[in-house]
Amino acid sequence: MKLVKQFGGGTADGGAKDKALLGGKGANLAEMASLGMPVPPGFTITTDVARHVMANGVGNYPAELAAEVEQALAKVEALTGNKFGDGTAPLLVSVRSGAPASMPGMMDTILNLGLNDTTVAALAARSGNARFAWDCYRRFVAMYGEVVMGVVAPSEDAEVPFDRILDELKREHRANRDQDLDEVALRAAVKRFKAEIKSVTGQDFPDDVKTQLWGAIGAVFASWSNPRADFYRKMHGISATIGTAVNVQAMVFGNLGEDCATGVAFTRNPATGTKELYGEYLTNAQGEDIVAGIRTPEPVAEMAKRLPQAHADLVRLAEQLEQHFRDMQDLEFTVQSGTLFMLQARSGKRTGKAMVKVAVDLVGEGMLTPNQAVLRIDPAKLDEVLHPTIDPKARPPAVAKGLPASPGAAIGRIVFTANAAEEWANKGERVILVRTDTSPEDIHGMKAAVGILTARGGMTSHSAVVARGMGKCCVTACTALRVDAPKKTATISGTGQTRNLKEGDTITLDGSSGEVFLGSAPLVPAQLGAELGTLMEWVDAARTMRVRTNADTPTDARTARSFGAEGIGLCRTEHMFFQPERILAVREMILAADEAGRRTALAKILPMQKSDFAELFRVMDGLPVTIRLLDPPLHEFLPHTPQEIEEVAQSLGKSASAIAAKVSELSEANPMLGHRGCRLAITYPEIYETQVQAIGEAAAECVAAGVVVKPEIMIPLVMVPEELKRLRALVTRAMDQALGATKLPYTVGTMIELPRACVVADRIAEHADFFSFGTNDLTQTTFGLSRDDAGRFLPAYIDGGVVPNDPFAVLDPEGVGALIELGVRGGRSTRPDLKVGICGEHGGEPSSVELCHRMGFDYVSCSPFRVPIARVAAARAALLDGK
Amino acid sequence: MKLVKQFGGGTADGGAKDKALLGGKGANLAEMASLGMPVPPGFTITTDVARHVMANGVGNYPAELAAEVEQALAKVEALTGNKFGDGTAPLLVSVRSGAPASMPGMMDTILNLGLNDTTVAALAARSGNARFAWDCYRRFVAMYGEVVMGVVAPSEDAEVPFDRILDELKREHRANRDQDLDEVALRAAVKRFKAEIKSVTGQDFPDDVKTQLWGAIGAVFASWSNPRADFYRKMHGISATIGTAVNVQAMVFGNLGEDCATGVAFTRNPATGTKELYGEYLTNAQGEDIVAGIRTPEPVAEMAKRLPQAHADLVRLAEQLEQHFRDMQDLEFTVQSGTLFMLQARSGKRTGKAMVKVAVDLVGEGMLTPNQAVLRIDPAKLDEVLHPTIDPKARPPAVAKGLPASPGAAIGRIVFTANAAEEWANKGERVILVRTDTSPEDIHGMKAAVGILTARGGMTSHSAVVARGMGKCCVTACTALRVDAPKKTATISGTGQTRNLKEGDTITLDGSSGEVFLGSAPLVPAQLGAELGTLMEWVDAARTMRVRTNADTPTDARTARSFGAEGIGLCRTEHMFFQPERILAVREMILAADEAGRRTALAKILPMQKSDFAELFRVMDGLPVTIRLLDPPLHEFLPHTPQEIEEVAQSLGKSASAIAAKVSELSEANPMLGHRGCRLAITYPEIYETQVQAIGEAAAECVAAGVVVKPEIMIPLVMVPEELKRLRALVTRAMDQALGATKLPYTVGTMIELPRACVVADRIAEHADFFSFGTNDLTQTTFGLSRDDAGRFLPAYIDGGVVPNDPFAVLDPEGVGALIELGVRGGRSTRPDLKVGICGEHGGEPSSVELCHRMGFDYVSCSPFRVPIARVAAARAALLDGK
Repeated sequence: MKLVKQFGGGTADGGAKDKALLGGKGANLAEMASLGMPVPPGFTITTDVARHVMANGVGNYPAELAAEVEQALAKVEALTGNKFGDGTAPLLVSVRSGAPASMPGMMDTILNLGLNDTTVAALAARSGNARFAWDCYRRFVAMYGEVVMGVVAPSEDAEVPFDRILDELKREHRANRDQDLDEVALRAAVKRFKAEIKSVTGQDFPDDVKTQLWGAIGAVFASWSNPRADFYRKMHGISATIGTAVNVQAMVFGNLGEDCATGVAFTRNPATGTKELYGEYLTNAQGEDIVAGIRTPEPVAEMAKRLPQAHADLVRLAEQLEQHFRDMQDLEFTVQSGTLFMLQARSGKRTGKAMVKVAVDLVGEGMLTPNQAVLRIDPAKLDEVLHPTIDPKARPPAVAKGLPASPGAAIGRIVFTANAAEEWANKGERVILVRTDTSPEDIHGMKAAVGILTARGGMTSHSAVVARGMGKCCVTACTALRVDAPKKTATISGTGQTRNLKEGDTITLDGSSGEVFLGSAPLVPAQLGAELGTLMEWVDAARTMRVRTNADTPTDARTARSFGAEGIGLCRTEHMFFQPERILAVREMILAADEAGRRTALAKILPMQKSDFAELFRVMDGLPVTIRLLDPPLHEFLPHTPQEIEEVAQSLGKSASAIAAKVSELSEANPMLGHRGCRLAITYPEIYETQVQAIGEAAAECVAAGVVVKPEIMIPLVMVPEELKRLRALVTRAMDQALGATKLPYTVGTMIELPRACVVADRIAEHADFFSFGTNDLTQTTFGLSRDDAGRFLPAYIDGGVVPNDPFAVLDPEGVGALIELGVRGGRSTRPDLKVGICGEHGGEPSSVELCHRMGFDYVSCSPFRVPIARVAAARAALLDGK
Repeated sequence: MKLVKQFGGGTADGGAKDKALLGGKGANLAEMASLGMPVPPGFTITTDVARHVMANGVGNYPAELAAEVEQALAKVEALTGNKFGDGTAPLLVSVRSGAPASMPGMMDTILNLGLNDTTVAALAARSGNARFAWDCYRRFVAMYGEVVMGVVAPSEDAEVPFDRILDELKREHRANRDQDLDEVALRAAVKRFKAEIKSVTGQDFPDDVKTQLWGAIGAVFASWSNPRADFYRKMHGISATIGTAVNVQAMVFGNLGEDCATGVAFTRNPATGTKELYGEYLTNAQGEDIVAGIRTPEPVAEMAKRLPQAHADLVRLAEQLEQHFRDMQDLEFTVQSGTLFMLQARSGKRTGKAMVKVAVDLVGEGMLTPNQAVLRIDPAKLDEVLHPTIDPKARPPAVAKGLPASPGAAIGRIVFTANAAEEWANKGERVILVRTDTSPEDIHGMKAAVGILTARGGMTSHSAVVARGMGKCCVTACTALRVDAPKKTATISGTGQTRNLKEGDTITLDGSSGEVFLGSAPLVPAQLGAELGTLMEWVDAARTMRVRTNADTPTDARTARSFGAEGIGLCRTEHMFFQPERILAVREMILAADEAGRRTALAKILPMQKSDFAELFRVMDGLPVTIRLLDPPLHEFLPHTPQEIEEVAQSLGKSASAIAAKVSELSEANPMLGHRGCRLAITYPEIYETQVQAIGEAAAECVAAGVVVKPEIMIPLVMVPEELKRLRALVTRAMDQALGATKLPYTVGTMIELPRACVVADRIAEHADFFSFGTNDLTQTTFGLSRDDAGRFLPAYIDGGVVPNDPFAVLDPEGVGALIELGVRGGRSTRPDLKVGICGEHGGEPSSVELCHRMGFDYVSCSPFRVPIARVAAARAALLDGK
């Protein structure tokens, strides 16, 4: 058999290594079956079939598939002793997706397949439990109706029709919960569900079990392309061409009675990383009840009392699986009549904090080497660990408490739908998505939000799993919360009163404690734990690239140094110009009629810049500091509204109309491509002269005070070698004069941020000690794409798959990367010792850092909070390179 | 001797082939001397010395130079029998510059060097003409004082002090003209000149003749770097490192009496190309009197009567030199006591019309092959031939008439200084520079002006020579004109009345007739002569690249076709959108709330676009037509002032505030890099669908009417292959649908105008039948340089030599060119039959066209009037390539 692989009965075709073909779920089911674990028998239709379907259209299978499925089904029948569609001993199966990459909840699942009016009677007879049989049947009809036949909620805020019907039945039968519905009610449910399907689709629910099976297989393959799966793949960078496998597996039943259960468990705590069997289960329930978050489940530890043998088996198998896979596992299980069955084992998703702790602990437990532990770190997830938490010393009283589903603190304005979250976020608002519960359709809203709060669900519900995957703060099962999404209001009752919330109100969530606060709570920076320190030692031992920081202020520089920055890669001097007491002098310089006037104004700025630089040199004592000379167009410093113009006119003793005229004269059609960067210094050399004088005098002063100063002076926006040649001469002259008798080596280099600079890098390097690739502007010019304007169409490009991701977030390897390589090669051809770095925002993005490593960079520079991320990314790149 | 080369006495060190070392003047003096022509003996200090001076500073010469000059001077003394500084038979010399490239009037010359109070007496005695001797002396002191000692006019509008003193003397001595001053007056002039020098510089005029000689040599070398020479080199693309030679030559005197003369002559008419000895002379004058334009000279033909032998010799030598050099010659000569001496021969500058006629005639006379004739054509100068002239059927009465110094018609507003000309031109005004006479200092104003009118000067005066070189219309010696530059007024008297003109008034010049008109005269397109037709046949036989045109309207297309365009390379569809009756529908489309609204508006635009395309297809019957789909950002079509917004609001029945909100929403920080080009079609596919439908339906209609239609549909601003892949599918679908049953091949290609597109050209070519390099935008993005904003600093870059020229005028070979080569190579690597062209404005600039040829382009496309220029440039490139 080539397209269908069997598992169960102590053997399997393939195992964990075959994820690409069998998908993650199928591969691990096979692995567990081979290990002799209690896995219900079944088979996996491979991803080869998925690719065939993608190429040929839904429902078009390879010719041999039907026969292989028949053969595999026969094997399952033999192993279980039941027969598919049989009127006496019917085989029921689950049909589940399982892609090579984990996409929890994104695709479809169908349970209890094989039931019809005949087999349900047989199931009732064999189980001796007619209510159970009809409960399975109503679940199956609803799932099949929704997934295969397309009977879904008519709008985002409406209920699925089957849920509505179930609610009606509960009212009619005075039942509080689903499990309180009796056989009669469930028979009615099946009947009404079928009628609803007929009414909505015009088609009958299929009684033929083979028809059911192929319908389900087709729907699972089709669900690969549903919008939420698409979105998830884009967000996580999963290729759309890998496809999903389909797993068909004999059913075991967690809803056969009170000695039955279904549950999920992690071998370690996925929020903290603590070594403990951590999970939840529900008695008398089927698998989807847990992740769907409809009922609030109990902790797995409770199972020890109520299902002791199954609990003991689970503990033993969990330990065995973790040792086997050398990683924290996420398990799904079902207990049928007291017996444990394993339905899934996979690497568990975890928070950044848990990621670090698990990796370090696994080294301590001898399961991994330090380098293997480093490669287990997702650098992007480290971000969470570095983020602020609520100040313990000024913690306000909480108004409610739910489950701490994903840690961290979040402050934002509340919205009640995923669409609203996205709209508000696009306008620059930080929002918290507040829902009764989230569904996979909400994923774009969860991504847009800074935090998620739900009334229902548990630690392993959809919201919790997805939020942890995104590193977003999340509180679930906040039972005090009632949401009325259509009215855009909510209430929080408890602590003696009911508070009304409406769209736009600000709240704070603590995802580590599960607490909810009204308004903005005070935050403090993240405390880095001991495990992170240990990990970063391994990281620094592994990497070859240096990591610097982009810092304009002593505060930023101090933060970055505490995060391990090995120097400043970009100090933007213009940010110093914007401070209120300086901007007036800057404006005076811009408005001056001639060079003499400009020099007078610059003389006022000089001492301020000098003290800025001196402070930076002191903070970075012993480390290199790259200072970029003035870059933005001068009009950025001028006032623009009539009122501002009037104020400036009064301060400078000029007429408002003269200032307005200058503002208008300096305005540009495309300021990004205008009179900025070193072009300013070609026309007004005195600006750079003054800045270099401030650098030199500050350096001399610090050297005299015993500080080790390593200045690197950087010229921005060079397009032709002649610019750098002239400005290098200017810088050297001004620097040597300012240093006077102080002997201090310094270097002069340039930003490479224009395509032309990459092309003529060999000749630019004749005048440069270093290149620092300014990938923000290089991306803008290479793509012809203004970052300020791209918001109008770039999202459509990303959503539509025209570009794989935002080139301002992830360095474009094919276009911008190719020009950078040209630049590095060119530069080193004339100057083999040229130092090469990056100071665009890509310097803190893991895949971009890895690209820089492959291109032979000496260092990356990024914002202070991303320094540890860049260190890890650099280490991973070095380790992957050394493989 | 290595640094100094001798000529005269029938032999010479070197000849015409040694221009790089001897300069043009020195090389041709040597050549003429070797041919046995009457050349006064002398020597040339080579350009090697100039380069030594440039490297080591003014006055720093190679050690061996002094001895070599002594030796050469001794040889001149031997050949003339006179001795430098001798009290009895003094040798006088001229010292003149002479660069490898012709730079007429840009550097300095000194005549009569070797005179002092002793030698002037000897000269008086030997010539028997004391007045002559003192005339030479006063000329020498004035020239030396100005050129070597720096006594110059204190401001642009002021007189040189020596001219002022001479005017005073003329008043005192009641003399009308310089030649009316007697010996006494001239002695007084010398005395006062020396006093002026002492007073201005604090230094004595040097009596020592060797000091004089080295002073003059130093001044000539230094004049290489004066601002007007710098400007001239930049304008003509002459390298600053080639340096000038210095020619020291025994004086012959045209001012020794009435049988003496000095003159210049062309072997053919430099304005029309007619074969005739064409020139001017002045009796009893020195060389500089002619080109300085102080006295109005007589036509050379008159010499036959007054100096018959000299005239006959001149005619004979002129013929001989033209045959020898196989080109029209520009000659300088002096007649001393009836004997002709040749002082210079060089290729004559000529108008575009003369250039064409001379080249074609020389082929007819057997001196050149057709291909050699094509290589003699400066494509840029053809521009003049193609420009409009005054409509002969509606010619207004002229108010004055001068000499037709440089042909063509010019309409502009008058200014009276070169600085004003430049200022007004920078503001976008077309100006005519009106001067009593121009001097080399006016060159930047002449460049800025569209035409030049002077009261003095002749056909070979400075204004005339420079204007012809620039291809500008010029009228000189307009004696009815009186200019008062400081008051910014002028008068034209004659035709019965005096008319007052002031700065800003509009006049029209006819440079072919010498006539001046008030206001704007009606113009008609250029009439292409038979010679041009012949030349273009040779051109088309020689070239391998096709030449197309950029044309948006049937009128442009018709003009271009008449100029030989072989298709349309760029039809910008947006220009059609701007027409008044259409813009409303376009705005309705932009303001529509959704796709349905946009489609409704587009349906109104469809029939108009369709008829545009049909008309273009008919005009270009049989030739390819490349249509670029919509490119500019949509906000360009919206109203911007409150009044316009109000008008549009009323027309569309919307509120002004809603329209203002949309205008504000669509405004962009950097529109050049914004939501434009194919990005519009990725977000609003219906726009391109409609345009393609219009193209397809128009094509089908034309095919049915028997027109041969070759549509090429072009997608702008592609940055990633996926854009083109999708839009090609869209275009193909819409086109096939619109064509219906009409069988018509068409192609789909793309602009390559972003650096990223060049880098990933291999993959873009998978979806493209052709690439058209949009070098305007490619230059903007490669340099990071907005064309709209560069005016603020690019002139400083060009003037300061940071960049060699304006990259928007001349395609940058190192940066943009390298990316284009990458793009061509990449594109043809996946698609060997890829058609490659250029449609930026560089497509009509000769050096850029030659670069395109070298890079393997199939065609260039340019504006209609530049089509012949591009054809010639393409032919030259092919001929140079084949060498």
